[in-house]
Amino acid sequence: MEPLRVGLCGLGTVGRGVVELLARNADRIAHQAGRGIEVVRVASRTPRPAVDLGKAVFTTQIMDVVDDPSVDVVVETMGDVAASRRLFEGAVAARKHFVTANKALIATAGGELLPQAARAGVAVGFEAAVAGGIPIVKTLREGLAGNNVQWIAGIINGTSNFILTAMASEGRSFADALADAQARGYAEADPAFDVQGIDAAHKLTILAALAFDTPLDARVVYAEGVDRLTPEDIEYAHALGYRVKHLGIARRTSDGVELRVHPTLIPEERLLAKVDGVMNAVVVNSDAVGSSLYYGPGAGAQPTASAIVSDLIDLARGNAVEAPAPRGDVCCLPMSAVETAYYLRIPSVDQPGVLAKVAQILSVNAISIEAVIQREHAVRQDAGRAWVPVIILTHRVKEAAMDAAVSAIEALDEVIDRVTRIRVEPLDDHA
Amino acid sequence: MEPLRVGLCGLGTVGRGVVELLARNADRIAHQAGRGIEVVRVASRTPRPAVDLGKAVFTTQIMDVVDDPSVDVVVETMGDVAASRRLFEGAVAARKHFVTANKALIATAGGELLPQAARAGVAVGFEAAVAGGIPIVKTLREGLAGNNVQWIAGIINGTSNFILTAMASEGRSFADALADAQARGYAEADPAFDVQGIDAAHKLTILAALAFDTPLDARVVYAEGVDRLTPEDIEYAHALGYRVKHLGIARRTSDGVELRVHPTLIPEERLLAKVDGVMNAVVVNSDAVGSSLYYGPGAGAQPTASAIVSDLIDLARGNAVEAPAPRGDVCCLPMSAVETAYYLRIPSVDQPGVLAKVAQILSVNAISIEAVIQREHAVRQDAGRAWVPVIILTHRVKEAAMDAAVSAIEALDEVIDRVTRIRVEPLDDHA
Repeated sequence: MEPLRVGLCGLGTVGRGVVELLARNADRIAHQAGRGIEVVRVASRTPRPAVDLGKAVFTTQIMDVVDDPSVDVVVETMGDVAASRRLFEGAVAARKHFVTANKALIATAGGELLPQAARAGVAVGFEAAVAGGIPIVKTLREGLAGNNVQWIAGIINGTSNFILTAMASEGRSFADALADAQARGYAEADPAFDVQGIDAAHKLTILAALAFDTPLDARVVYAEGVDRLTPEDIEYAHALGYRVKHLGIARRTSDGVELRVHPTLIPEERLLAKVDGVMNAVVVNSDAVGSSLYYGPGAGAQPTASAIVSDLIDLARGNAVEAPAPRGDVCCLPMSAVETAYYLRIPSVDQPGVLAKVAQILSVNAISIEAVIQREHAVRQDAGRAWVPVIILTHRVKEAAMDAAVSAIEALDEVIDRVTRIRVEPLDDHA
Repeated sequence: MEPLRVGLCGLGTVGRGVVELLARNADRIAHQAGRGIEVVRVASRTPRPAVDLGKAVFTTQIMDVVDDPSVDVVVETMGDVAASRRLFEGAVAARKHFVTANKALIATAGGELLPQAARAGVAVGFEAAVAGGIPIVKTLREGLAGNNVQWIAGIINGTSNFILTAMASEGRSFADALADAQARGYAEADPAFDVQGIDAAHKLTILAALAFDTPLDARVVYAEGVDRLTPEDIEYAHALGYRVKHLGIARRTSDGVELRVHPTLIPEERLLAKVDGVMNAVVVNSDAVGSSLYYGPGAGAQPTASAIVSDLIDLARGNAVEAPAPRGDVCCLPMSAVETAYYLRIPSVDQPGVLAKVAQILSVNAISIEAVIQREHAVRQDAGRAWVPVIILTHRVKEAAMDAAVSAIEALDEVIDRVTRIRVEPLDDHA
């Protein structure tokens, strides 16, 4: 049988990883795919490729790959959204399949591009766009395809998880932990994309579209990063039996789908609470299976190459071409309508009666209190006043009610600074 | 498009779960599959089905399902191997696809049956045969298809894991924990299949065949159950920083593939150490991805039905038909050639010099010691002699060397009973 012929655009670490993996495991891959998979054309802006390209023809023009009649499938590992989009459009026009690791492309333009590909009878593989080496796209599309998904909660940004792990285990500040992540190559020089939750929002957009048919439009996701967390809050969370993780959460409710990315207190006994360092993990709660969890490396050249190659093997076997594009017709809830429990840290003057006033405000907003910590030894001096952090865990309440309560609490004379709030999720059902 | 028409044999809890899931999630399933999936014929020995069969025609003769020309795919949820095999042969002769939850059928006869099906152009789906709702078969065949797998380690028998969790958390005896499992419906009246490791050996046979092309012949798997574990050993393991889990382990070595099922000490910080109760989890260590972990319910009507329905959706989409049958040509190591570390509990008289003699025997057999526990307060009186358990952790050594050392240790006058040994695995690489 003829091999599947690949044209590869981009020779950064991921692109080189694809070339290396296809060469190293050629026998296994041909056995699984039923035929060989060969890279026949490679494009990169850098004229001297730092990897053995075998018999592939090299070019510095990406459109040469699309125009090459011997190419069956275009693999895109460039990263840039605009260039990737032009490549996609060229591939569809030339009736070539398209495999990409570009989460931003799929999460911002997928709603337009995937139907376009479907009309042209062209497959789009994007297993590599979410959670690197974990086959979570396939799991949602195929493994759990008979289920209605109720919620998804995932650690889907390794940089943020590395920073949180360092803050929790070593009491480091955010800035210090970030510098460590940068020194180890886990964070970019401009870390905003990771630490402000944008990367995680892109990935959550894709997972939710597959599970719930919400739009492939990352703007509908509420995103908050790890960049404003303090070791103090992480310590209080521990004292209350929780861990702080940066989660992407998508949840079906009777009013619409919640889509949100933010630091989250989760019970310390959950498996997700034990996922440390740069690793990723996604819990899927679905009606037939209940909770299942998928754990592995969320980034890196070889794990990402593994995901791209699994898409190529599916194409070689003739699978996946007809996988339905998410319908994108299910509505998303505004954040004000999202319901969660909350952790609040209220910096207040150290005098009797403050807790009574805070409790009164919460009560007026129909928010019930689950736990309070107010420790004598935590009293601090600042600008001539003694103050103390009052820590409160609440039961579930709509975000809008909490917004109102926090404004009222911050308006109290006794409250000397902004209230810190972190959402709390029980993640019931064992994972 | 025409629906995929299913003939179902067996209306126990799993068969009823399939009927219910296909009805409840019909819309989602049709969307994912690109066409409807309908049960058109149902066979069960029990004449009055306790589930709404819709428009399906009921029969008490399973061969009626194979003979029904409207049936595209036969789903088998009967459990009995001989009946299931007859049904398989009928289905292949009638050129109908075959989906089964029967791990014993695949693990004992798959080496003969799968090539037979492939020659007839018929697909065999057995996602439901391993780890229930976790799509681990698809993950090995497709998601990680570009990887060479190095090892697999899994908690793949929920009954054994429930018993171990009860023994570890409540200090219960095996018999007591088993009785609890039976009372909750997690263990059969005859629990031998689960607690002697036979069920886990069947599942490991299937996983290893997919990952390593070892034979679908469960007789090549070494199997040891949880039935001889004591709470005492579990406690010592905790004191040493380990948890005891019943694992199925398959590992590629330069001499062949290790295939073994046994209680195992694993470091307490591994995610696998935190998988409790009836849940299952499988770690796959592969060359491109490194370690990834898949966690979920390993049994139950709905999780198993989810796996069967995912096979049906693949068939409806035209996928999976050409998935390669494992070649079965890779050789398995005899247990004597397997290399692991060991936990030893040596019941010896409480007098000086015993440890020196034991250490001498280990040394003669080239076994090095990693840790020793010999606690004064553990001294017991038995048959007029004071005795004490000596606990030793060793480094890695071939099973044959350990067999020789244990025989020599048991021959010492000071050793008053059989030596307990439990294998130890570090499960490196984060999972």
